[in-house]
Amino acid sequence: MENTYDFGLIGLGVMGRNFILNVADNNFSAMGYDLDEEKVNALIEEGQDTKKVNATTNVEHFVQSLSQPRKIMLLVPAGKIVDSVIESLLPYLDKNDLIIDGGNSFFTDTDRREAYLQGKGIHFFGSGVSGGAKGARRGPSIMPGGNKEAYKEVQPIFEAVSAKFNGEPCVAYLGPKSAGNYVKMVHNGIEYGLMQLTSEIYDLLKKAGKYSNDELHAIFDSWNKGRLQSFLIEISADIFKQEDDKGDGRLVDKILDKAKQKGTGKWTSQNAMDLGIPIPSIDIAVSMREISALKEERVLADKLYNRSEPAIMDKKEMAKWAEEALYFSFITTYAQGLHQLADASKEYGYDLDLSVIAKIWRAGCIIRAGLLEDISTAFTKDKQLPNLLLSPQFVPKVQSTVGATRNLVAYGAKNGIPLPGLSNSLTYFDAYTSGRLPLNLIQAQRDHFGSHTYERTDMEGIFHTEWE
Amino acid sequence: MENTYDFGLIGLGVMGRNFILNVADNNFSAMGYDLDEEKVNALIEEGQDTKKVNATTNVEHFVQSLSQPRKIMLLVPAGKIVDSVIESLLPYLDKNDLIIDGGNSFFTDTDRREAYLQGKGIHFFGSGVSGGAKGARRGPSIMPGGNKEAYKEVQPIFEAVSAKFNGEPCVAYLGPKSAGNYVKMVHNGIEYGLMQLTSEIYDLLKKAGKYSNDELHAIFDSWNKGRLQSFLIEISADIFKQEDDKGDGRLVDKILDKAKQKGTGKWTSQNAMDLGIPIPSIDIAVSMREISALKEERVLADKLYNRSEPAIMDKKEMAKWAEEALYFSFITTYAQGLHQLADASKEYGYDLDLSVIAKIWRAGCIIRAGLLEDISTAFTKDKQLPNLLLSPQFVPKVQSTVGATRNLVAYGAKNGIPLPGLSNSLTYFDAYTSGRLPLNLIQAQRDHFGSHTYERTDMEGIFHTEWE
Repeated sequence: MENTYDFGLIGLGVMGRNFILNVADNNFSAMGYDLDEEKVNALIEEGQDTKKVNATTNVEHFVQSLSQPRKIMLLVPAGKIVDSVIESLLPYLDKNDLIIDGGNSFFTDTDRREAYLQGKGIHFFGSGVSGGAKGARRGPSIMPGGNKEAYKEVQPIFEAVSAKFNGEPCVAYLGPKSAGNYVKMVHNGIEYGLMQLTSEIYDLLKKAGKYSNDELHAIFDSWNKGRLQSFLIEISADIFKQEDDKGDGRLVDKILDKAKQKGTGKWTSQNAMDLGIPIPSIDIAVSMREISALKEERVLADKLYNRSEPAIMDKKEMAKWAEEALYFSFITTYAQGLHQLADASKEYGYDLDLSVIAKIWRAGCIIRAGLLEDISTAFTKDKQLPNLLLSPQFVPKVQSTVGATRNLVAYGAKNGIPLPGLSNSLTYFDAYTSGRLPLNLIQAQRDHFGSHTYERTDMEGIFHTEWE
Repeated sequence: MENTYDFGLIGLGVMGRNFILNVADNNFSAMGYDLDEEKVNALIEEGQDTKKVNATTNVEHFVQSLSQPRKIMLLVPAGKIVDSVIESLLPYLDKNDLIIDGGNSFFTDTDRREAYLQGKGIHFFGSGVSGGAKGARRGPSIMPGGNKEAYKEVQPIFEAVSAKFNGEPCVAYLGPKSAGNYVKMVHNGIEYGLMQLTSEIYDLLKKAGKYSNDELHAIFDSWNKGRLQSFLIEISADIFKQEDDKGDGRLVDKILDKAKQKGTGKWTSQNAMDLGIPIPSIDIAVSMREISALKEERVLADKLYNRSEPAIMDKKEMAKWAEEALYFSFITTYAQGLHQLADASKEYGYDLDLSVIAKIWRAGCIIRAGLLEDISTAFTKDKQLPNLLLSPQFVPKVQSTVGATRNLVAYGAKNGIPLPGLSNSLTYFDAYTSGRLPLNLIQAQRDHFGSHTYERTDMEGIFHTEWE
């Protein structure tokens, strides 16, 4: 049994089990490893044929069963466990073996690990995997980064198991070092933004349009057949139909309005600030999860501030505006995330191709959307496009939908329905497209109290004034 | 001359020179130290009497001239230079001497330095100083943190040199370790928020009200005599009057609309995310400085997207709304910063007293404002107040001004004038006071694609559903 399996996978939780079965389905033999004997046995049983899928609790046995160069993927929680798994493998590895971290590791951890393993002749890949448990089983989007030559060893397997969009695999070599982890992090940041926007439109339709869950299902379902076609709109339509298995009515109405987070959205926002790239539609999605967690304070505050009922809007007009506003703010959210990627690419030397990234997001992952085809085209036409909003193909898309966004944001402001994702998408757009912003006053204030100097519009140089 | 000076100061730039002259004015003798001989000589000349103020380029001479326990303040740029200055002092210090870092050091650096120096019997204080060059000279707000007993040694000097509000010194011992640096960091975050808000109101009055600079001066000046009384409103009034010393007209119109930043606002936002505390009014102020820096892209985008002229508003009504909206969003911005401080106090063991912090911000510092008196009272009445918005004294202030904010945010959204600070303050308020938010949909989505589980409104427990 030595040196016969094509692919090794460590961590046989839901994601790991599904990923390894997916590998086997694609005619690559695979060996799993987990310390939990139950998980090992469950995989062997589910795999049926141990020549195709096998598993063990013994790390030495695991490594020795793999063909060389070994391709070993980790689907374990990010953090110290990744380091300890690597250490446990090292005594049994040979030069040119590949370790692939499929989790959401922080990108600087990946850089550190790659440098460490490079010294030992081992290749290390940070390789984001998106699509959840179902994606891992049926075809995820995979975002690998690391040594370009070494990637070729695992390329056939990744291309086979990944999701396909019109036959094209949703995986590609993205760049050196932590490029894969970084792209996956920003993917998740965009995911936060799109989820927040979707929830706001749901709130608006429900509160101001008095939409029932059946109507919400119908409208999201119809949107999913148009330009808003996307995984998150699709599953939202599903969610509105789901019956409560513990009582009467629909489940969505019984779910507590506290949204948890695991950190990748936060990392995206924090790192964008380090780069100096504005991504307010993602920042606010992180903040809204935080506000959602303050349930007890919110309930208290709700009683202190009497809020009047929102004015009821015309249902048809509202639905039209909602679709347009969602399209507008999906575009601006992707634009912000891609802007961050473009900048990170320079800062960290990833040399990313944004058109390729948009392509591998078209299927398999959580932010897959019809829109990504257009985004990919825009970056194919202009590799140096600084921001999606500057793409000539996107100008009419944005122009034709910004009006509806203005109407809804104004309505939300007037009626006390918080639409922070929509309004940040709108003010981002309005600020980004303003040749002149009022930050001259801020710069004047900074020079006034801190002698921080300023530039002028009419001449070159750095100036300071003794303000009166 | 050995062991005679009461206070030592390192770094004789504008802030340092002004601070040491302030010390001497208050009848404490002070010795300055800088490697730059010109700065040393300039200080000696300006100080006139070397028994009161002296200076040297020799570190040994500097340390030996101070009375024990020595009180040595650093006003040098944050970063590695602080460490190297500390190292240069160490050979000459004695047990129980105090080193006080008056710069904007990152709080974890302060914790590291304090622990390091504690091992050598030296006390280390992170002590934020706000008020700019003028504040340092005439009386800044000082935010010290460190060893409580050791603080008593420097307390008489700090209380003498600090700004006074109704005779009370704007300095107080804030807490152990990096409490002082942390409070100063959040002070600066609030400062970013208030500056952004002020700039938006300026934009609105100018674009939608066609206010001239003289009218802007008059209205800001009148606001500064009312409940908006604050340093930033006061200097804005000054700024609108300042003549251009390089050409015709007012200087403010010639200043380039690119606002720089030095990092403390960014740190505030990044750390709030680590704590899980929402501060969107500060986050967006950081983002807007970033957007302002993208001048070339903005000019390009402005041409691509034809923006129609904003509808003109009634000047009087607009001025009334602007004053109310600014008051509303100043309150919500302070509320967010103080919320962050309350949480950091628990997380880092600072044991902060928010009423004391509001008190020492009433004069001397950049965010000084009449409002801080009310804020201090609110936290005196309820030490455990989780958020200023929950203070019974603040409910009517907020209720009576939120309507105007709604009107202006709606106007800005409709007319393409970006008011991201105002709208984030409003949506923060609307979300924080919503007993029910639509994040149940987000939690449903997370459970749908990632089996992340959810809680229910009607029963205890953690649930997962196999979504159809």
